[in-house]
Amino acid sequence: MKSNWFYEDLYPDDVKLGLKVKRNLYSGRSKFQKIKFIETYRFGKTLILDGVIQTTTVDEFIYHEMMTHVPMLSHPNPEDVLIIGGGDGGILREVLKYDIKSVTLVEIDEKVIQFSKKYLKEIEQNSFNDKRLNLVIDDGAKFIKGKKKTFDVVIIDSPDPIGPAEVLFSEEFYRDVSDSLKKGGVVSRQSGSTFLQDNEVRDSYLKLKKVFKYTFIYTAAIPTYIGGLFSFIYASHNLNPTRIPLKKLEERFKEVKGGTRYYNPEVHLASFKLPNYLKELVER
Amino acid sequence: MKSNWFYEDLYPDDVKLGLKVKRNLYSGRSKFQKIKFIETYRFGKTLILDGVIQTTTVDEFIYHEMMTHVPMLSHPNPEDVLIIGGGDGGILREVLKYDIKSVTLVEIDEKVIQFSKKYLKEIEQNSFNDKRLNLVIDDGAKFIKGKKKTFDVVIIDSPDPIGPAEVLFSEEFYRDVSDSLKKGGVVSRQSGSTFLQDNEVRDSYLKLKKVFKYTFIYTAAIPTYIGGLFSFIYASHNLNPTRIPLKKLEERFKEVKGGTRYYNPEVHLASFKLPNYLKELVER
Repeated sequence: MKSNWFYEDLYPDDVKLGLKVKRNLYSGRSKFQKIKFIETYRFGKTLILDGVIQTTTVDEFIYHEMMTHVPMLSHPNPEDVLIIGGGDGGILREVLKYDIKSVTLVEIDEKVIQFSKKYLKEIEQNSFNDKRLNLVIDDGAKFIKGKKKTFDVVIIDSPDPIGPAEVLFSEEFYRDVSDSLKKGGVVSRQSGSTFLQDNEVRDSYLKLKKVFKYTFIYTAAIPTYIGGLFSFIYASHNLNPTRIPLKKLEERFKEVKGGTRYYNPEVHLASFKLPNYLKELVER
Repeated sequence: MKSNWFYEDLYPDDVKLGLKVKRNLYSGRSKFQKIKFIETYRFGKTLILDGVIQTTTVDEFIYHEMMTHVPMLSHPNPEDVLIIGGGDGGILREVLKYDIKSVTLVEIDEKVIQFSKKYLKEIEQNSFNDKRLNLVIDDGAKFIKGKKKTFDVVIIDSPDPIGPAEVLFSEEFYRDVSDSLKKGGVVSRQSGSTFLQDNEVRDSYLKLKKVFKYTFIYTAAIPTYIGGLFSFIYASHNLNPTRIPLKKLEERFKEVKGGTRYYNPEVHLASFKLPNYLKELVER
């Protein structure tokens, strides 16, 4: 039998990640993008949008935990949470580990949710049925306009700034996100590989820094997001995440139901310690 | 023109990294292994042994700095250093940034040094001409046998435990390394991807732990070593590297001539903070 490999299209002139495919699960097209699900030998079930790996059932926990618990545990009492994007349900699952009042998830592409419920059950774990969820099918940038002092934590789980997600990387959007925060509010977003998407890291950081008082890069390494350290940005008007005492994080972490597989309070604080090349990238 | 890609053979049944090739520089065979140098678009010049990427001129600094400065700065006064392997000269270059008395480099394959001098000048930076260097062409495991209390720092820069490097992963070898250390001596070694080589991480950690009092995993993310966090092991009979005050590291770091591009004292301490999945891997 001829072996079947999937090669990612994200860096067509530089670098490719290939995953050996066990089964093709679905391949189709929504109004917004090409959607594909495959089952791979090493990374389990994998969601691919427009040729780019979004998440896999084997390493998703790293990304979803770091996107969620860093802002959630930096905030002293998050009650109302907004997720922009996140149609695979991974961040939703992590947010629901807290005793929150509400979580709003705004996904532009209903088909991503539909198919993730079918093919990525291991990720969403029935989270879309939780009573605290307010599910909105809409463009996140449109949705957030005019929302004033509504959310404690906003998590921007968008794909890369190409196609429908481009607007979620604009300064205007960040200003709307800022307006949507209650006092003490916190934002997190993914900002790409520190090696292969260095311009994206720099651009996202500098734009958020224009809008927020405290803007910090933090990192994790995620196998299927190739390119060394992967970056996230934390932003807030009130809370400096690098000044939270370890003891306080450890105390707060006890309320996270079901625990975590990557995140812990020591890793939380360590993730803000940046190597020289990354400091230089945003300071130059 | 048909485009030319190099695909790594390290995980033939799971995952592949592909690098787009600008030029093939050399391809041949030594007594020990297949040796290949290519120039790639994104990662510069690349050394490949038996189909496995060893180092690239673009991201080598992460690996070489973390292998070197973590043990060197944990030791209060390293004078005599041993590098086992390291024929590309990257660790040698970093060690020579200190005011040491001697550095011994034991490489089994003379051809790796010869060709690295020719094709990877950016890495070795003329380090093989330094007067403090004692260059030995030999099997590292043979060389170290019977050396008593000779070195302050031993850095084991071996490829993966297949082919000629296998012996550099045995308990017997680690006992010989232990004997070769002066009082206060420190060892570092690479131990592979925490995702794709998890058995290697676990095995190396547990074997070193049998021999040394203080054995710790530390991590960095290196783009061309795919599989998320990459691991290193620190071992010593006397020095707990996680207890060194930041201020002391910062003071010592001033003596590192020419500075660093990845390493800094905060990253040094942060690199020992392990995510849950990695703690569980070695504790289970």
